[in-house]
Amino acid sequence: MISELRNILNDSQISTNETILDLHSKDESYHIPSKPDVVVYPETSEQVSAILKFANEHKVPVQPFGMGTSLEGHIIPYDRGITIDFSLMNKIIEIKEKDFLVKIEPGVTRTQLNKELSKYGLFFPVDPGADATLGGMAATNASGTLSVKYGTMRDNVRDMEVVLADGTTIHTGTLAAKSSSGYHLNGIFVGSEGTLGCITELTLKIFGIPEFMSAARATFKTIDDAVEAVVAVLQAGIPIGRIEIVDETSVKQVNHFSESTYEEVPTLFLEFHGNEAGLKQDVAFTKDIFEDFNCLDIQFETDTAARNQLWDARHNLAYAYIHSYPGRKMMVTDVCLPISELAGAIHHARVVIDQLGLPGGITGHVGDGNYHIILMIDMNDPEEIQKSKELNEQIVEYALARGGTCTGEHGVGFGKQKYQEKEHGEALEVMRKIKQVLDPNAILNPNKLLNDKNS
Amino acid sequence: MISELRNILNDSQISTNETILDLHSKDESYHIPSKPDVVVYPETSEQVSAILKFANEHKVPVQPFGMGTSLEGHIIPYDRGITIDFSLMNKIIEIKEKDFLVKIEPGVTRTQLNKELSKYGLFFPVDPGADATLGGMAATNASGTLSVKYGTMRDNVRDMEVVLADGTTIHTGTLAAKSSSGYHLNGIFVGSEGTLGCITELTLKIFGIPEFMSAARATFKTIDDAVEAVVAVLQAGIPIGRIEIVDETSVKQVNHFSESTYEEVPTLFLEFHGNEAGLKQDVAFTKDIFEDFNCLDIQFETDTAARNQLWDARHNLAYAYIHSYPGRKMMVTDVCLPISELAGAIHHARVVIDQLGLPGGITGHVGDGNYHIILMIDMNDPEEIQKSKELNEQIVEYALARGGTCTGEHGVGFGKQKYQEKEHGEALEVMRKIKQVLDPNAILNPNKLLNDKNS
Repeated sequence: MISELRNILNDSQISTNETILDLHSKDESYHIPSKPDVVVYPETSEQVSAILKFANEHKVPVQPFGMGTSLEGHIIPYDRGITIDFSLMNKIIEIKEKDFLVKIEPGVTRTQLNKELSKYGLFFPVDPGADATLGGMAATNASGTLSVKYGTMRDNVRDMEVVLADGTTIHTGTLAAKSSSGYHLNGIFVGSEGTLGCITELTLKIFGIPEFMSAARATFKTIDDAVEAVVAVLQAGIPIGRIEIVDETSVKQVNHFSESTYEEVPTLFLEFHGNEAGLKQDVAFTKDIFEDFNCLDIQFETDTAARNQLWDARHNLAYAYIHSYPGRKMMVTDVCLPISELAGAIHHARVVIDQLGLPGGITGHVGDGNYHIILMIDMNDPEEIQKSKELNEQIVEYALARGGTCTGEHGVGFGKQKYQEKEHGEALEVMRKIKQVLDPNAILNPNKLLNDKNS
Repeated sequence: MISELRNILNDSQISTNETILDLHSKDESYHIPSKPDVVVYPETSEQVSAILKFANEHKVPVQPFGMGTSLEGHIIPYDRGITIDFSLMNKIIEIKEKDFLVKIEPGVTRTQLNKELSKYGLFFPVDPGADATLGGMAATNASGTLSVKYGTMRDNVRDMEVVLADGTTIHTGTLAAKSSSGYHLNGIFVGSEGTLGCITELTLKIFGIPEFMSAARATFKTIDDAVEAVVAVLQAGIPIGRIEIVDETSVKQVNHFSESTYEEVPTLFLEFHGNEAGLKQDVAFTKDIFEDFNCLDIQFETDTAARNQLWDARHNLAYAYIHSYPGRKMMVTDVCLPISELAGAIHHARVVIDQLGLPGGITGHVGDGNYHIILMIDMNDPEEIQKSKELNEQIVEYALARGGTCTGEHGVGFGKQKYQEKEHGEALEVMRKIKQVLDPNAILNPNKLLNDKNS
């Protein structure tokens, strides 16, 4: 295999070094690591095509790899084979300012992209906590704090170049803002987690940095009050930029990690975007609504530095947990429900966490109906592992029974395959047929998304 | 066949009456009519499932039919067979106010839906000119004047129940606002034009009627100025609700049909949505920008009746043409381009229209980069038919060469199959594989979207 790969790549683009294999054996989740046989670093989509053609002919498993920040074992090569690391394909190819589009290679990370875009007064709004690659973010249909306003990756991918299992290169979209031509392949390739092809180029929607922004922290007596306040703001049609919940436990972690002194009570982090006059009116209306839900206090930060500090604290929450529990592994639940079911779901989550006696904090993109429980697991304690899995199952069951999904943004990967049948029913067979016809040798990221035999 | 169908449906739900067959032989386009063998009117998804199961076993073509307002021959049964008319499945099942969702049957029309939603201060924003059914609108990924703000059907379908070729019933989505679970089937079934399944239920996103709205008409000396003004407004990040262009020829048609007295020069129809303070600032900013592009005059209509009249005039534009050219058939081009290419495209369109000596008017959803040329063709004049087809081809070639699409909102149907290979390249093979694996007997709306043999 290595000698065949040498016909495609330089020696420096192929590694079987144990440290490198180890780095590609795991993501940021609790899932058990497993090494690939070899890691390759292509520089062009032609090289990706040649690698896949070879792998397909020899039925060798292939897994694409961005930054390894996935949370459900997406990139773990349980059947070994080739891991394609996209870190050398990290060029920003073209910023089309007038069209609000940017064309990039898949290994570009979101902070790299936003640093470049900021020179033009532009930004890309999808912001998962991790500094993931855009290729990886598209593969899992990532989202984040700004998705309540700007949508998820699926909403912001205009076109992709994708190399299929047999090495064929296709485009999944168009540069036009809308199209009714052919089947919408963007929709199906975004979120396909490397099981249908490898993304080798992306054209993304970008946005002007809003004229005015105002961030706020609002504290509440109970988490139920905070959630109900969010629902009321959404129902009033206030066009909020961000609206995040952080429970008491999680505020503690934030304070500990970020050396902040936020009051340790259920808190909403908010951001308003717009023109100056409109924003003032939105803010005033939101304050009125919050008062109806026993808001304890609301503080505004219009200064850019203070606003960034507030959002950094929120973004670093997962790392705050990791930092506080050295040696433990992170398990994060990720259900998303219709907004009317959110208060009930978060209430139920707190009851189950307490019943099981687990140290879990709740946080979430409540404007989308998406929330997380962050658990730090001692992987040497079988009882704790068992309890954590039980919690995850109860949380997912609750969401599915109410029209929700088992994963709002982290994806299925290895860990959530067991819920696919329950969530999708007969539609799972349609997904399997599509997978089978596009990857007949099942080389693309095996044991992920649809193969529930192992999870 | 009829006796088999009698096992599934009542006699009143089956028709072979010539007038009925004739009504189902054509849409609103210039494409040549062709009758089905039978028209059926199911009342439940179980009946749709039984019809498809029967059709699949006997390899009988099936085409779904909403209101017959398609513009590319989507519903014409060129291979005869069964036309499923969804007019009896027209119930609004549930309005979930708190979740901003509505569950409906596919035969509900957009005015029927909005009439009901208005009782709750809510509305559904996708507004093609025709009073189409929501099932048909989802099948073609329809859009309209409000899509610049609210998106297309694909952006507003949360979930669908779809009956597949073999009679299996699936759900394509979830009720949650976002999901990273499984392949995104919504994306591929919306816009699949009845070639992958029959939609039997839809859950759609709905919106609060904006707090404040202001409509405006702005007139310009040249169409180039008007288009450049639109691009400048978009680039300034002003969150416009609607922004439509109507050229001189089309304003004439509007005046003639609606008995209005709009000045017959290139005109932008606009609408701003928002809170009162924000809207005032947006309107003032837009006026400033328009002045830089030689705006002749700008008139505002804040009064609801005047605003509705203005938008009715715009929506009735196609009917204004039909009314003025009795006996002729409508051909409408429908390309969509990156916004930076729009001014050049519209300029090119006017040159080609004049060169060919055709009486064509330009109109369009310019905020999306989507514009139409409306032509009324004398189907007895082979030279005019030939010239119209030539125009369409030149317009499409221009758009495709600049990263655009051959259809922004009308769909492929019968008429645009010939452009699919050029637009999608190798991706067309992926679409064909998906079609083949989901509809192996090719019973679902044959000769549409992917079968370029006849178009």
